[in-house]
Amino acid sequence: MTTAVGQGAALPADREERRRAANEVALARLVGASPHLVGVAPAIEVVPGMQANMVLTSGAPLSWPEYTGGQRRALIYATLFEGLAGTEAEATSALDRGDIVVSTTQEHACIGSVAGIYTASMPVLVVRDETHSNTAYCNLYEGESRYRLNYGAYNVEVRERLHWLERVMGPVLAAAIDHTGPIPLLPIMTRALRMGDELHSRNTAGTLILQRVLAAALYDVGRAGRDGQVREVLDFLGLNDYAFLRVSMAAAKATADAAHGVEYSSLVTGMAFNCREFAVRVSGLGDHWARGGYPELEGRFFEGFSAADTEWIGGESCVTEAIGLGGFAQACAPTLMAYQGGSYARMVENNQRMYAITEGEHPEFLIPSFEFRGTPVGIDIFKVVESGITPVIDGGLAGHGGGQIGAGVLHSNPEAFQAAASEYLRHYGA
Amino acid sequence: MTTAVGQGAALPADREERRRAANEVALARLVGASPHLVGVAPAIEVVPGMQANMVLTSGAPLSWPEYTGGQRRALIYATLFEGLAGTEAEATSALDRGDIVVSTTQEHACIGSVAGIYTASMPVLVVRDETHSNTAYCNLYEGESRYRLNYGAYNVEVRERLHWLERVMGPVLAAAIDHTGPIPLLPIMTRALRMGDELHSRNTAGTLILQRVLAAALYDVGRAGRDGQVREVLDFLGLNDYAFLRVSMAAAKATADAAHGVEYSSLVTGMAFNCREFAVRVSGLGDHWARGGYPELEGRFFEGFSAADTEWIGGESCVTEAIGLGGFAQACAPTLMAYQGGSYARMVENNQRMYAITEGEHPEFLIPSFEFRGTPVGIDIFKVVESGITPVIDGGLAGHGGGQIGAGVLHSNPEAFQAAASEYLRHYGA
Repeated sequence: MTTAVGQGAALPADREERRRAANEVALARLVGASPHLVGVAPAIEVVPGMQANMVLTSGAPLSWPEYTGGQRRALIYATLFEGLAGTEAEATSALDRGDIVVSTTQEHACIGSVAGIYTASMPVLVVRDETHSNTAYCNLYEGESRYRLNYGAYNVEVRERLHWLERVMGPVLAAAIDHTGPIPLLPIMTRALRMGDELHSRNTAGTLILQRVLAAALYDVGRAGRDGQVREVLDFLGLNDYAFLRVSMAAAKATADAAHGVEYSSLVTGMAFNCREFAVRVSGLGDHWARGGYPELEGRFFEGFSAADTEWIGGESCVTEAIGLGGFAQACAPTLMAYQGGSYARMVENNQRMYAITEGEHPEFLIPSFEFRGTPVGIDIFKVVESGITPVIDGGLAGHGGGQIGAGVLHSNPEAFQAAASEYLRHYGA
Repeated sequence: MTTAVGQGAALPADREERRRAANEVALARLVGASPHLVGVAPAIEVVPGMQANMVLTSGAPLSWPEYTGGQRRALIYATLFEGLAGTEAEATSALDRGDIVVSTTQEHACIGSVAGIYTASMPVLVVRDETHSNTAYCNLYEGESRYRLNYGAYNVEVRERLHWLERVMGPVLAAAIDHTGPIPLLPIMTRALRMGDELHSRNTAGTLILQRVLAAALYDVGRAGRDGQVREVLDFLGLNDYAFLRVSMAAAKATADAAHGVEYSSLVTGMAFNCREFAVRVSGLGDHWARGGYPELEGRFFEGFSAADTEWIGGESCVTEAIGLGGFAQACAPTLMAYQGGSYARMVENNQRMYAITEGEHPEFLIPSFEFRGTPVGIDIFKVVESGITPVIDGGLAGHGGGQIGAGVLHSNPEAFQAAASEYLRHYGA
């Protein structure tokens, strides 16, 4: 049997055999990962290759001049926040000269929410896959305001919240995790899926469960001298149902990275947006990012906004979809429709369609309303290209001028998958 | 139009009109209640009519000699726990003589889980319906052991846990609620329904949300001198996903009581098991309990047990079903099948069938997977009798010799509803 893509190219039978075997290996790594939350620390101290004058942003790599619109502004704001420049003009000059360096999160084992801005001082969650010994990082959720740096917004309020994360949230979480020891995330995530989360656009249960897991440790940290700070953290967690997203994103990145680099595998180990394109990373294709157009959007907009206000400024939280969560677990989260529109019937249909483009079913991420069937996991670029079915992604939407303007279901454009399949055939078919 | 029951009896048209109007009033009370958790205190201090030598138990009233099996044993154990008797023989004599008094929870605004044993010293949750100004009570969850006094079991471990509730859990919760002020329960309950609870046999989300609501107050209570006790409470809540059941039961009792006593209403305001029968209380029929046989059981048993081991020793948590929760919200809680058996398809079917026997749909208890349709609420005894469809009840199962042996879906026997309809026609039809 051969694998055909649009252009009529095909893989010889022996290599097709190797592809299938490789996909089994990559799938085993995807479903066998065991992410643990092991700490929280400033990016500069733990993120590989991070530098004091570096800003990380989401998406397949671009050179600084290629960044436009909200993502470009977010990078400039980051330099102001970090104190690398005093004004936007100074920042632009320093970026132009290369005195401030822009790099992509993905090349630093990080994962970016929307624009995904990381600076050296920002605290990051450290998640280690104990099965495969690799580590991934995600910075912290800024809170429920529409205006957040990762949505391309910056003002006094945004800056103060970021400083609070650095001064209070990061150190308190770090101290609490010192008390608990490494926190296994699969038990929290599998449980959250039974409680209405899909762990991309809904993380309410995950946040509550994590708060319970940390409860006694937070209590002890408070008694040990951080009394007022712990109260502030409790208040923050009490108001911010999204807080767990960054944990599930770091877990997703650690898991996807564990499955990356399996020669001949055609499974997706990364999906990412930048301000120019959507891109896909494939296990067997090294650092190559196959690029294509933006998804079709089924959105629900905050009052006063419409689809026309949407701006693509980056996003990598869709790595959760690559490990069998988010749109691939949508049927776990009927309440999500109140946030991102649609109907439960439509969510079930979206979710079921994903089984056609995946290599397997997750043994631990189960969908209760599908009678505990495992979520579809391991997106195969060839299955996408051959079926014409593309991944559904749950996501928040940024607007022109910054800030979140809504949320929705994104139906990926097939172009990046077609490009990935062509690259695969070029690489392995020759 | 007339209302016919099995025997061919019917209500004259004018009275049928009054019945319908009364049901609208009772329904408005059921869905308009606003239960708040206002405190925790020893039963003797707050429960109306409670006495030092009194034990309360679940179900339609029986006289002491009528109690048999596990429910009788539970009453005897209660007297030992309370120190009213030194031995089982002494207890039996005192009960025979009437020196120790048995009363039914329902006559004291209380609600009993399984055997529902209350003694004077036990701490109870105090829930007030702020809309209708009535108050209800429920004692505290004993923990996840199979052996609990309310399941007819008693030993050193059971006794120590009950003492811990009295010594630590009750006072700490009371102090925390002093800090928070009255806690509105509808927001917690409506949210829990979106997170996979049906608030009878599944209360995981409710427990987590309550713990979050109490987090800051517990922290402050600890700092104010109950340090070790608060740590114990955090540990207990961290292990006991069922803790919220007692809160939702007290809320259900307060809500059902608010709808009770509407002249001419044929809506159910209480359902209860004792060791002899299942019984139904009707809004327009005062203190009358219409009695009938036990339900048909679709159970899932813990290893080593079967349906033959089931013993009926009491239970009133099915008042949650009377206010539109439990079996009437089963489709919210697909994960429940892992505990009580069945399939999600079957749960959906059970839940949908309940719309045929209810007066309305709850405006706040919503079923996400039914596209946020309200839960069926306000069981009409005539709709039950005419349709032959009886309420489904989620419930835990007690075994011969005490202890929990499983859980399941109980399909009520129509007899009690038929008896209620006959009583209604006798009362209002003459």
